[in-house]
Amino acid sequence: MKRSNRLVVLTNFFLENPRKHIQLSYFVSLCSTTKSSISEDLDIIHAVFESQGLGLLHRTTGAGGGVSYIPENAEEHSDQFIRALCDKLADPERILPGGYLYMSDLLGDPKTVREIGRVFASKFAKLDIDAVVTVATKGIPLAYAVASFLGVPVIIARRDPKVTEGSSVSINYVSGSSRKIQTMVLPKRSLKEGTNVCIIDDFMKAGGTITGITNLLAEFNAEVKAIGVFAEADDDDEERKVESYTSLVKISSVDLNRKIIEIVPGNLN
Amino acid sequence: MKRSNRLVVLTNFFLENPRKHIQLSYFVSLCSTTKSSISEDLDIIHAVFESQGLGLLHRTTGAGGGVSYIPENAEEHSDQFIRALCDKLADPERILPGGYLYMSDLLGDPKTVREIGRVFASKFAKLDIDAVVTVATKGIPLAYAVASFLGVPVIIARRDPKVTEGSSVSINYVSGSSRKIQTMVLPKRSLKEGTNVCIIDDFMKAGGTITGITNLLAEFNAEVKAIGVFAEADDDDEERKVESYTSLVKISSVDLNRKIIEIVPGNLN
Repeated sequence: MKRSNRLVVLTNFFLENPRKHIQLSYFVSLCSTTKSSISEDLDIIHAVFESQGLGLLHRTTGAGGGVSYIPENAEEHSDQFIRALCDKLADPERILPGGYLYMSDLLGDPKTVREIGRVFASKFAKLDIDAVVTVATKGIPLAYAVASFLGVPVIIARRDPKVTEGSSVSINYVSGSSRKIQTMVLPKRSLKEGTNVCIIDDFMKAGGTITGITNLLAEFNAEVKAIGVFAEADDDDEERKVESYTSLVKISSVDLNRKIIEIVPGNLN
Repeated sequence: MKRSNRLVVLTNFFLENPRKHIQLSYFVSLCSTTKSSISEDLDIIHAVFESQGLGLLHRTTGAGGGVSYIPENAEEHSDQFIRALCDKLADPERILPGGYLYMSDLLGDPKTVREIGRVFASKFAKLDIDAVVTVATKGIPLAYAVASFLGVPVIIARRDPKVTEGSSVSINYVSGSSRKIQTMVLPKRSLKEGTNVCIIDDFMKAGGTITGITNLLAEFNAEVKAIGVFAEADDDDEERKVESYTSLVKISSVDLNRKIIEIVPGNLN
């Protein structure tokens, strides 16, 4: 296989298999070429990925040495993407009765969802995460997007147990904004003891749902390494229950009468 | 930018932007090169994509001419992938009380979900689909995977209306297997009149849910171009309500006593 063909094959392979550690010998036989040619190919791909803000190829040497693709958004890409999201969300047409914002169109666009996943995965790249946990239903697409860049599975907590998921562990918790008691369940076989997880959800106000998941995960001895929410809203009446989290956008205020929405970049540090 | 660098940049661009029509002049300025160089690059990428079973680059000439990437799985890839899925699903450890099969681990793996999406998107590639519709919650990841390859948005019908989605249209329907009356809602602003859609779900027995979505979509004058379900189960007691559909795997029988599951490739034609 010629270099030009190899570059297309290898680029596709890395993009489809983030964080998967591959020995160079795999590529040598895949492309019927020499180790030194593959090594030069990897240098080219690494340089382009870095210059385009797509991440990098991480090389290890020695016995069992190889390469893995670490997708990491350049910070200016993330900032630019988030500012564009804020502009879209500030459209007064989005205001719904009760002061809610219609966001289903944005969260229904696979490309936007994928970019959101890329931003979170870049933030959480060094945290050694084994699984992404979310609660049904609006966080699900975001959780898959994050998980695909981290190369880990998604585990979904639900409001009701499902007969197709076998026995489950459930907890009751108090929803922050509605002050109602809610239930959340996780199938027993979904999570091994001692897993490192990140929690992803679409929206956080007082943080009751996130606290609920955290408590449920404690039943599995899972360690919550990071929490990511797409949008957070200020909640003056409540003290926020969750302290350490990453949010992409923050809904500062929704003025129903004057139809003005104030959206700013969230808590990315 | 040198050819080797351009090939990495362009391959990444096409994989991230399936079915998006791009004029060559865009790439000419992106890569600071000539139209003829870009044209040669596209020939190389097209040849590799075809030989690897990843799809093809579709070129159009004349004013407004350009190129778009059409992801299409080679049929033998799809067949191989589906046979491997059948083997995994036939593991007797998956049997749950009531004769259900545990599939959440497979559907929680982003790479498996993406491959399932690729198979459906390849099947539906020529149908001119504008949106993918699913019903919460288990079909959601599959719907996003299909939509990302078709380059279209996802629209989610729910069991209950959500305050964050505004006014909605709802229907009641009879679930085939449980004979219970269920409700399904779709936000009013989620779907324009006359949209061409495909329906994606994880599981179909008698087909009540699919029939429910179809009826709900009729309220929006949407045209259902295709129906794709991951797994179908034989239902001896019921006549199937849905006639034309694509399924990846078929659960022929689950023998609870002898712990034998019979899974075969589904209805791919």
